[in-house]
Amino acid sequence: MSAIEQVVREIAEEMRERPDRGDVASYIPELARVDAGQFGLVVIDADDNVAVGGDADVPFSIQSISKVFTLTLALGRVGDRLWERVGREPSGSPFNSVVQLEYERGRPRNPFINAGAIAVTDLILSGHQPREALGDILRFMQFLAEDSSIAIDEAVAASEQRTGFRNAALANYMKSFGVLDNPVDYTLGVYFHHCAIAMSCRQLAMAGRFLAYNGRNPSTGLSVVQAERARRINAIMLTCGHYDGSGEFAYRVGLPGKSGVGGGILAIAPGKASIAVWSPGLDANGNSHLGRVALEALTKRLGWSIFGA
Amino acid sequence: MSAIEQVVREIAEEMRERPDRGDVASYIPELARVDAGQFGLVVIDADDNVAVGGDADVPFSIQSISKVFTLTLALGRVGDRLWERVGREPSGSPFNSVVQLEYERGRPRNPFINAGAIAVTDLILSGHQPREALGDILRFMQFLAEDSSIAIDEAVAASEQRTGFRNAALANYMKSFGVLDNPVDYTLGVYFHHCAIAMSCRQLAMAGRFLAYNGRNPSTGLSVVQAERARRINAIMLTCGHYDGSGEFAYRVGLPGKSGVGGGILAIAPGKASIAVWSPGLDANGNSHLGRVALEALTKRLGWSIFGA
Amino acid sequence: MSAIEQVVREIAEEMRERPDRGDVASYIPELARVDAGQFGLVVIDADDNVAVGGDADVPFSIQSISKVFTLTLALGRVGDRLWERVGREPSGSPFNSVVQLEYERGRPRNPFINAGAIAVTDLILSGHQPREALGDILRFMQFLAEDSSIAIDEAVAASEQRTGFRNAALANYMKSFGVLDNPVDYTLGVYFHHCAIAMSCRQLAMAGRFLAYNGRNPSTGLSVVQAERARRINAIMLTCGHYDGSGEFAYRVGLPGKSGVGGGILAIAPGKASIAVWSPGLDANGNSHLGRVALEALTKRLGWSIFGA
Amino acid sequence: MSAIEQVVREIAEEMRERPDRGDVASYIPELARVDAGQFGLVVIDADDNVAVGGDADVPFSIQSISKVFTLTLALGRVGDRLWERVGREPSGSPFNSVVQLEYERGRPRNPFINAGAIAVTDLILSGHQPREALGDILRFMQFLAEDSSIAIDEAVAASEQRTGFRNAALANYMKSFGVLDNPVDYTLGVYFHHCAIAMSCRQLAMAGRFLAYNGRNPSTGLSVVQAERARRINAIMLTCGHYDGSGEFAYRVGLPGKSGVGGGILAIAPGKASIAVWSPGLDANGNSHLGRVALEALTKRLGWSIFGA
Repeated sequence: MSAIEQVVREIAEEMRERPDRGDVASYIPELARVDAGQFGLVVIDADDNVAVGGDADVPFSIQSISKVFTLTLALGRVGDRLWERVGREPSGSPFNSVVQLEYERGRPRNPFINAGAIAVTDLILSGHQPREALGDILRFMQFLAEDSSIAIDEAVAASEQRTGFRNAALANYMKSFGVLDNPVDYTLGVYFHHCAIAMSCRQLAMAGRFLAYNGRNPSTGLSVVQAERARRINAIMLTCGHYDGSGEFAYRVGLPGKSGVGGGILAIAPGKASIAVWSPGLDANGNSHLGRVALEALTKRLGWSIFGA
Repeated sequence: MSAIEQVVREIAEEMRERPDRGDVASYIPELARVDAGQFGLVVIDADDNVAVGGDADVPFSIQSISKVFTLTLALGRVGDRLWERVGREPSGSPFNSVVQLEYERGRPRNPFINAGAIAVTDLILSGHQPREALGDILRFMQFLAEDSSIAIDEAVAASEQRTGFRNAALANYMKSFGVLDNPVDYTLGVYFHHCAIAMSCRQLAMAGRFLAYNGRNPSTGLSVVQAERARRINAIMLTCGHYDGSGEFAYRVGLPGKSGVGGGILAIAPGKASIAVWSPGLDANGNSHLGRVALEALTKRLGWSIFGA
Repeated sequence: MSAIEQVVREIAEEMRERPDRGDVASYIPELARVDAGQFGLVVIDADDNVAVGGDADVPFSIQSISKVFTLTLALGRVGDRLWERVGREPSGSPFNSVVQLEYERGRPRNPFINAGAIAVTDLILSGHQPREALGDILRFMQFLAEDSSIAIDEAVAASEQRTGFRNAALANYMKSFGVLDNPVDYTLGVYFHHCAIAMSCRQLAMAGRFLAYNGRNPSTGLSVVQAERARRINAIMLTCGHYDGSGEFAYRVGLPGKSGVGGGILAIAPGKASIAVWSPGLDANGNSHLGRVALEALTKRLGWSIFGA
Repeated sequence: MSAIEQVVREIAEEMRERPDRGDVASYIPELARVDAGQFGLVVIDADDNVAVGGDADVPFSIQSISKVFTLTLALGRVGDRLWERVGREPSGSPFNSVVQLEYERGRPRNPFINAGAIAVTDLILSGHQPREALGDILRFMQFLAEDSSIAIDEAVAASEQRTGFRNAALANYMKSFGVLDNPVDYTLGVYFHHCAIAMSCRQLAMAGRFLAYNGRNPSTGLSVVQAERARRINAIMLTCGHYDGSGEFAYRVGLPGKSGVGGGILAIAPGKASIAVWSPGLDANGNSHLGRVALEALTKRLGWSIFGA
């Protein structure tokens, strides 16, 4: 058993015991029903060794983690023109704040707050039907994870579509400033569906590998994106990946990461590993509580912080 | 000549030619008088080799770069109790914004915006006379840089004291919420003076070494701070070190860094180098324009980004 | 010819000459097409004498002036329970700002900013079909103006429905906080349609009489609302009737008033007159430029300011 | 006994009984010591008849009510040039908010929030020594009230000077934008002192008469300000006189008024009366609770609302 495998198992065991589990997202019934006792951790290293701990193969709603992949896909399609629509600075606000949009005339601060991710989705949608755009996103995830069984949880998507008034407010607001090209309903439809993709920690860590290895899939050697683009996506994950808890995550964990309200976090140790962790209970900023705790332990024990050994 | 030395000289030469130099800070006459044509770059590696380029030994006003060192000093004195006074999230606002203070009841978002640095200065001051506190800060800089000639530019300090109304507003505002313990004038006096420390790129890169090498001085082997603390300070530099241009700096340069309106930037390549760059012209966010350009070139050519080789 | 008639004619003539006419609202083609050279003024005194000047019988889009009447109708239906949903303080922001909504958890500051008027419309809609609610509003206007020919301009309504993304943002935002009871589309549909009611100055001044005469129709003597309610609606018109130009209107005109982006203003001289003015060109706050100028002249010449003779 | 006298006595008696008295301002010890059981009411009509109720001759700290008189004085000195420094729109924020200042580059929204009153004080001070400026303000109050015994409570002034950090923040903030001409300490000194003027309800109602009677002193017939200026000051009192409770005061009382945290309110019934009320307990917006209740009863019983009989 490798050092990584040992640390992953240890942490999975420690997390199973902990009483502090945060609160499961309650805003849609499909998320609220998830058992808060679950915990999964998967680490895939540069040689494609997979270390698993806990509920590593249970699918969960990736929610905002999908924003990393839609950003990647959109950059591939429109290139740096994307940055005319969306900034890349931390927001200093909650994930669904509309205040910043008003002060900056409809331009979202970064692609990882909801408004920014909706604007990125709109770019992917342009020139396509919603169904096609969504198919492209899903196939991209399956390709990265090398797993064609990855699917959208339609019940989650439908529920978000029914209750996502705050996101509808953000989308309409940007539309009023011309930041969206497509009909608001189309863009929101694609957005709600890609947030509803269900993946396990194993699938997610597989999908994130290109960010750890300079844009390449380490098993096939194929380039997904250029090395510079992978670095830059990592940089945005570091500064903006955890909403208004991004500073805290950088301070404690020291890795680029992106969280979702389903309780998942994708973290990248550049050159070393792609990491996925899942624990459904959230902290006050909407990030997985034990997920962050586990990653803090992991980087400490393995000396993986990008800020020093 | 080492690879690092060669890259440093190349970049210094390239920068000398560039016509785009930004605008020299004009808010105090002492800074406005500086010749925008100057450029300095110093890189000190893990073996304490010093690579120099351009005006490496011309002292400049370090301004906000001093905040890295006052934060380090204050953490040494009061430990994590410091975080009760100051947060560690990016602000999403200009360096001197008071809006965030009002919404968060006088608690600054991080130690690198002006309000946060004033609150940190106040912690250093507690239990001391302003003159003593300032002496401690200066001696700490001299100790880190191994150079007892480092001094405060009294003309700059006096000028800031005369015109620093915005900082006085921030300090009084925090005082009204009980965030400062000492008389506002005392705290501001120490703050204006430590921002007015004059250092060359060489001195600054020397002073920053402990952040690159897990808290240790690589020549003496002496520990300045624990490794974890060094990592965490680097993390805050990455997320908050360039005000509302922090995301951009992470995206382009990929290193923890702290800028000052004097045109200096201290950047840290963990495990690899302590870097100081200086060019007096600033961009719209108040960060050295060519300083950032030079660091982007440096990390690219040497593969030093913390986000991937 | 009475003194009032003379002043009204004088002012209408003076306004016809003035070159400064503001800018016609351009956000929907139907409003942009209106001839900026038009000007109408109608004053109806306590004895129901009607003084007319200029284009007194040309119908225009009343837009936000409808908010006075929907507020009156909603107060009649739900009473002071309305104030649980909507405040009655000036907003200190533009008419379509969403910032205040975020800081006050979805509760609009007053019924005369867009968000507040949408919330009021939602209360009128509750328990009804959109078509019924809209019929009630239209019949109320016809009853007050004693003119059954008043109608909705369907082209304006359709255009606003197609392009009203900012209002859709406000409505969805409030919906996310539970401030709206009905489907967002229903509420917005009724809102866009009542803003698209077309009336002439004569019809508008007729409709406003109950506010000038303690809640009563001076010709029939019938009570529309209690005297106290009429006073209170006037108070809200004074403090909130002109968006972020309300202070200016009070300062210059000295009467309660409500403006619309169609260029109309309804003003009330309590005990003395109901006044309607119309000039399509707007000032920077979205209020009729010459409308305000005319009302300032009127109150000065007739000594009608509520702040002193 | 006149109708007014009877109403004044009734109300004074009713207020004495009420258990709901609000909370006495606690931020300086001098104000916190005041007995919350006190209540005074004075009404002076157009014939200079004085109706008194309760503690009509007990002096209290007029605090922000002084802003009405410094505005009048400053307008007399610099005329409408004053409005280049200060706006006249309601702020939509608490009395001591700094947020609006940041969004509007240091220009206060109106002369009755703290920032605006400090800017007005600065205009009065220009070209004078602080002692002279303060003497001018005090003499103006004595002249208006026809009572040379009116004085500054030095203990209150000293206490505010010691603890007024929030006001110091506002002043320094404006100074940084060039909105103040004089040294911050001078301007604040004069400001704190004129807020510390102590007056009884009788003295205050006397001083306010010129606002009720078109700018004239009704007993001497002398003009204090032009009629139009008096009307306009009344307009600003109506829209901005009670901070973020101005809409509520207009809605309930229906008179221009200005409150102070000492518990006093000056209210103006144009053409009818100058009114002063005092009860030290405050509501959540910092306005006298029973003062407002008493004025609501008064205007209702006497039919004095400016919004309808």
